[in-house]
Amino acid sequence: MGATPPLSPLAPASFPKLPKIGGVRFATVQAGVRYSGRDDVMLATLSPGTTVAGAFTRSSTRSSAVLDCQEKIGVVSDAGAAFLVNSGNANAFTGRHGTASVKAVTEAASETLKLPESRIFTSSTGVIGEPLPHDRITAKLADLSGALSADGIETAARAIMTTDTFPKGAGTTVTIDGQQIHIAGIAKGSGMIAPDMATMLVYIFTDAVVDQPVLQSMVSALNNSTFNCITVDGDTSTSDTLLVAATGASGIRVTEDSVGFMQGLREVMLDLAHQVVRDGEGATKFVEISVTGASSDTDARTHAMAIANSPLVKTAIAGEDPNWGRIVMAVGKSGAPADRDTLSIWFGHIPVARDGWVDPDYREEEGALYMKQQDLTIHVDLGLGGGTSVVWTCDLTHGYIDINADYRS
Amino acid sequence: MGATPPLSPLAPASFPKLPKIGGVRFATVQAGVRYSGRDDVMLATLSPGTTVAGAFTRSSTRSSAVLDCQEKIGVVSDAGAAFLVNSGNANAFTGRHGTASVKAVTEAASETLKLPESRIFTSSTGVIGEPLPHDRITAKLADLSGALSADGIETAARAIMTTDTFPKGAGTTVTIDGQQIHIAGIAKGSGMIAPDMATMLVYIFTDAVVDQPVLQSMVSALNNSTFNCITVDGDTSTSDTLLVAATGASGIRVTEDSVGFMQGLREVMLDLAHQVVRDGEGATKFVEISVTGASSDTDARTHAMAIANSPLVKTAIAGEDPNWGRIVMAVGKSGAPADRDTLSIWFGHIPVARDGWVDPDYREEEGALYMKQQDLTIHVDLGLGGGTSVVWTCDLTHGYIDINADYRS
Repeated sequence: MGATPPLSPLAPASFPKLPKIGGVRFATVQAGVRYSGRDDVMLATLSPGTTVAGAFTRSSTRSSAVLDCQEKIGVVSDAGAAFLVNSGNANAFTGRHGTASVKAVTEAASETLKLPESRIFTSSTGVIGEPLPHDRITAKLADLSGALSADGIETAARAIMTTDTFPKGAGTTVTIDGQQIHIAGIAKGSGMIAPDMATMLVYIFTDAVVDQPVLQSMVSALNNSTFNCITVDGDTSTSDTLLVAATGASGIRVTEDSVGFMQGLREVMLDLAHQVVRDGEGATKFVEISVTGASSDTDARTHAMAIANSPLVKTAIAGEDPNWGRIVMAVGKSGAPADRDTLSIWFGHIPVARDGWVDPDYREEEGALYMKQQDLTIHVDLGLGGGTSVVWTCDLTHGYIDINADYRS
Repeated sequence: MGATPPLSPLAPASFPKLPKIGGVRFATVQAGVRYSGRDDVMLATLSPGTTVAGAFTRSSTRSSAVLDCQEKIGVVSDAGAAFLVNSGNANAFTGRHGTASVKAVTEAASETLKLPESRIFTSSTGVIGEPLPHDRITAKLADLSGALSADGIETAARAIMTTDTFPKGAGTTVTIDGQQIHIAGIAKGSGMIAPDMATMLVYIFTDAVVDQPVLQSMVSALNNSTFNCITVDGDTSTSDTLLVAATGASGIRVTEDSVGFMQGLREVMLDLAHQVVRDGEGATKFVEISVTGASSDTDARTHAMAIANSPLVKTAIAGEDPNWGRIVMAVGKSGAPADRDTLSIWFGHIPVARDGWVDPDYREEEGALYMKQQDLTIHVDLGLGGGTSVVWTCDLTHGYIDINADYRS
């Protein structure tokens, strides 16, 4: 990859202050997997009794680390656990070597951390097709173990970055029956895939007491309305990983019915998901696509994703062009039912098209002015039924081409 | 749209010399639908007894002209026929006004040309959502009718251009039992969609005698392996139209079994399809994606289209980067079955990856050298079954962003 891209214009002002989660400690180290002069391995340890849930890429060419994590999710254990993540090399499409590398890293971490191997969850992100120099990681395990601290979450967020232009963190505090539960998470990703398979990785921690099946069902459900609703370029990584750990340190139990906890967890997941879009490669606009009136929620999502992934829609947004015709095109090609003559479109609160034709009161200057905003909402109503969907994306700019057409170096 | 983009580096040296098709005459005129200083309406008339077959966009927001053509295809008539096409305005997403404009144009053409209205096929391409100033077209019908000539096919190809950087024509002569049948066609399109819904329009003429149902079944079948196998940006127009007219002037009858005619027609269709890709917005590379070893032809096509439409693959090609990891990613995300460990990839004849890992003999320099060519072939074998597919696409460059992020003017 070429020079580091400049800070995204959509980046937050600073890394947020996050609540500390009892039972979680972080350490990072310079292992020299690929990068030099920066931390590139992150360890998070989780106290005994922690439950772990996850969601993973559905790619059929997923990496060995993803396959390994998927096997371990749901294994019942009262032992502690650890997340071990390296940047610089994705260990993807490396065949049996990839599997051997995951084994080598998890075995060594199991020994150093005195944890069962089934409780070591690893992720790798960076170039693909190159063998992971796992010795460089295992050589640093003792250092990592000795450096663990409850305070290292921002440093951890930085160590897992690849082409990200800012570290991503989000947190919240939920009050249930007068008692506080904390949630904090970090993420990396600046595209569904950044150059050389830079992946979306997300690690979220809470001190709630949550049984694993309950946590898993919450994470799976919330993933569908958060991380599965963002797209930068429609491309899907071989390594996307979301892990959520509940340490139980607060002593407060959460069940299927804990609406407050679900809302808090969703808030953190959505915040991190939006930050990934805001760091979309070359992004200059953050765009919410809201579809209503579809025949079903599934159809609404099909339309929303067709709009969000259309290069013609995304370049029009980059050009601040209120080109609603391209939205009609995207709806038409999506494959889900649509009726040209019941279709309506809004830019923000501005009615642009109604019942199949331009709104009689719409003035192009008004649309053009709206498109100059950094955060945009495009609302499409199909006029067919009650199906709805919301997805988030960014524009497609010269910056995307600059980053992705660069020769790997 | 902004300034005219420069001639595509993939353009042919010149417009080809095409065989004249007995029974077909052309005329063009400056009607000022939107452009000034150039012809923007094209009329082609077809002698009595001509059969007409077609294929159209599957967009659910297709234009009134497309709906009108679809109704007329297959109507039995011994009368002559006409294709009437304007550039500058697509008459799409114009509600009942759109339908009224098609009616006004076809009625007037029917009267001027002394043809049944059911034999007037119209197309419109250009901006969408704006009413078609159809009076400007009907005002020129007498002029067009008076100017008809058997020689005007290149001029016709130019009159239907919107953001095309070169006019597109292709032809061939097929010998059957010592007798010659001629086929000639023109096309416009520089993306599945160019700015403001510039559509793919294709008109092909032959002097063969072909019954309408036979011609229709040939056109539908060949469309699946030609125009339906090209993609510039994965976007689909509201107006894509392919019309094929058989005038019968040669007196030579063609049946379902005429392999030679089928091959000739396919050659013309594929040539025009490739020219559309070669005029892809901002294109600098012409890329054939060949997929073999899939579980079915449908799966092979799903993989091929996922590769061809991946922004990460397309930007890598633009950057002359032999980034086979992005091809693995595209296969993985396509949704069709794939096994990471049986996947093989070639750039041209260079084996790059084999059985799930980089080929031991592959050298990156060799791949990098290959990627510098203007015409590229990427071959992926899934190692699962006998399914195959070939599609054609171009790269994604700054030129695409320049053309499509420009504010409409």
